[in-house]
Amino acid sequence: MTRNSSSADLPRGFSFSATACGLKKSGLDLALLASERPATAAAMFTQNLVQSAPVQISRAHLRESRSGVRGIIVNSGNANCCTGPQGLATAKATAREVARELASLSPSKILVCSTGVIGAPLRAGKILRAVPGLVKSRSSTASAFAKFTRAIMTTDTRPKWASARFRIGGKTVRLVGCAKGSGMIHPNMATMLAFLATDAAVVPDLLSSALRSAVDRTLNSITVDGDTSTNDTVILLANGASGTRQIARKNADFRRLCRELHKVCSSLAQAIVRDGEGARRMIEVEVRGAPSEDAARRVAHTIATSPLVKTAVAGGDPNWGRVLAAAGRSGVRFDPRAADVYLAGIKVCQRGREKPFSEKALHRKMLANFVPIAIHLHRGSRKSRVWSCDFTAEYVKINSSYRT
Amino acid sequence: MTRNSSSADLPRGFSFSATACGLKKSGLDLALLASERPATAAAMFTQNLVQSAPVQISRAHLRESRSGVRGIIVNSGNANCCTGPQGLATAKATAREVARELASLSPSKILVCSTGVIGAPLRAGKILRAVPGLVKSRSSTASAFAKFTRAIMTTDTRPKWASARFRIGGKTVRLVGCAKGSGMIHPNMATMLAFLATDAAVVPDLLSSALRSAVDRTLNSITVDGDTSTNDTVILLANGASGTRQIARKNADFRRLCRELHKVCSSLAQAIVRDGEGARRMIEVEVRGAPSEDAARRVAHTIATSPLVKTAVAGGDPNWGRVLAAAGRSGVRFDPRAADVYLAGIKVCQRGREKPFSEKALHRKMLANFVPIAIHLHRGSRKSRVWSCDFTAEYVKINSSYRT
Repeated sequence: MTRNSSSADLPRGFSFSATACGLKKSGLDLALLASERPATAAAMFTQNLVQSAPVQISRAHLRESRSGVRGIIVNSGNANCCTGPQGLATAKATAREVARELASLSPSKILVCSTGVIGAPLRAGKILRAVPGLVKSRSSTASAFAKFTRAIMTTDTRPKWASARFRIGGKTVRLVGCAKGSGMIHPNMATMLAFLATDAAVVPDLLSSALRSAVDRTLNSITVDGDTSTNDTVILLANGASGTRQIARKNADFRRLCRELHKVCSSLAQAIVRDGEGARRMIEVEVRGAPSEDAARRVAHTIATSPLVKTAVAGGDPNWGRVLAAAGRSGVRFDPRAADVYLAGIKVCQRGREKPFSEKALHRKMLANFVPIAIHLHRGSRKSRVWSCDFTAEYVKINSSYRT
Repeated sequence: MTRNSSSADLPRGFSFSATACGLKKSGLDLALLASERPATAAAMFTQNLVQSAPVQISRAHLRESRSGVRGIIVNSGNANCCTGPQGLATAKATAREVARELASLSPSKILVCSTGVIGAPLRAGKILRAVPGLVKSRSSTASAFAKFTRAIMTTDTRPKWASARFRIGGKTVRLVGCAKGSGMIHPNMATMLAFLATDAAVVPDLLSSALRSAVDRTLNSITVDGDTSTNDTVILLANGASGTRQIARKNADFRRLCRELHKVCSSLAQAIVRDGEGARRMIEVEVRGAPSEDAARRVAHTIATSPLVKTAVAGGDPNWGRVLAAAGRSGVRFDPRAADVYLAGIKVCQRGREKPFSEKALHRKMLANFVPIAIHLHRGSRKSRVWSCDFTAEYVKINSSYRT
């Protein structure tokens, strides 16, 4: 689903644009997603206590305009976080300027997102001067969308997007999503920005409920480095431009929307871990046989964030003892003597002990792009799955001079 | 205190030896610390649910022989963990063999420690065959102690030891400690083994209490990668060979012992983080102005384990936003708009906002061997301090092929 985005089948009534306003040393760094009619909006934000100015402003605007959102403006290169009252003023001014240029709207109809370095002051001038051109140049073409997906990137090496098309009441509905990820990726949620747009018509509460359920097991079940960001945002807009009947109850239409949303979010989540900073392999950690889903999740996250597990995967090293040891410090009670561990589909530990395997053959299997790790606790029937990536020297290189 | 260990002033009545029994590809890998008379013992073990065979056996032996411990046998190269009943049998047989060779003692008078790869079976033969020679070759010289400190190393680049001499009732008491650390270092406690021996005479309960209080703020306040090990052990033996009066109450003698123990443990803890896998700099994270000591500790640990903070320090990058962002995900409530952040002694964030500083000058300061990071939450008066190290590409290299 992450093919060349110029082939994207976009939902009706949305337009996109992007420009280079000078926040990054080079390249696109300012992007706009606009809806030609008021859209219902649902959003989820970082759980970090430290929240960027745009997160604070977007939260406030959402409370005022949940059924009337007209656009999202995103800058990359500066997170506008820990920037005090001036940062808030910049985020507000940005929304105001976009609202005015679009159609003399109330600023609360515009949401604002930022990603980049934390703590450096964001000067409003560069953005404000670029807004009129950004608004004017918006278009509904796949290439405009492709530019949007590139403009929101930071250390991402490639744009990430996914789309779906389905039918409601005999009419076609379209859904598209894109995301930026890379580092500081950890549940709730990541330095992750994800934008989803559909031309379905959905009442606000159901749109929120659909988004929450899709994100929980996808974009909130990934980790790159265990660090949660101050700017994480997922926004879903539904503008009804498809002309299909409104989804106002938890009926078959709603379930259909949920399924498609889940697919698109799942695709974006996987694209994010595959493109984690310095990552060469995607890791899937599955915990089975847990006493509760929460316990399964805690064990899965501890394994998925363990530097020792992640470096072992970087080297294709079948060091299953580190998997069991990480589970053992997760805080979840289980009997290690009952646990089984699987690496790349091979059972390497049975009831807490090594089950003989070919070190060479398994090493080769672990050099694949996708390395599944599973642990069965034999303490119940609940399970959980988390996606992560390996931890390479390249990650260190990227992050040791991010600011300088 | 970590000068050449051949100058160590050793406590009376202890002897040391080491040999290469073939567990490592080359080098010393089996070591013995013996007390010529029964010693009072105190110990602390890993909090990981997954516990190695030697940890299980040593726990059991300690319950039986808290005032009669005669020796500690340590192997490096294999952790004897996740090795099932056979691993337990190996650890037991090792203690039995040492006990018999020393003086037909009960095996419970011997403690056993292992460090190395988890999950690989440990064959008893190599160790058992080496025990008689190990026991015979023991000596009380500084050079025997120096061999002991080298034999317990895994990926450590240098031995770590510290000593103290003090007076109780007009007589001299000696205390010596050594440790191995490197990776999988995280409170409670690390793939850390630390051995402390003194010729003071101390009743068991007070020895435990002294050890616990010293370890809490030293060896339990360090982190290399956030991964806790399955083999962590700290053992303190007090054999009374100095001939000083017994410490049996919490009097001035006891406080003196505690102070000296704290100094030695602090020195070992700092030596461990300075020699963390791939580490080039030691990081001290200090949290001030917290509502409780526990809150301060949680914030300090979150910052000290953050890969983004640790990679920034590796590059000397004054990315203070990552420090505040890590604090923000620690689970402790505070107002980020009130927080101050200091890097290498320079206030870079005041009340949640950047305080202008010279990026170049601070970068240079951060390239030192010791980088202090402090955050003031302005939410109370409690504080905490954790030691860590930077996160380098070398760490990844070491850990991506540890097993293969």
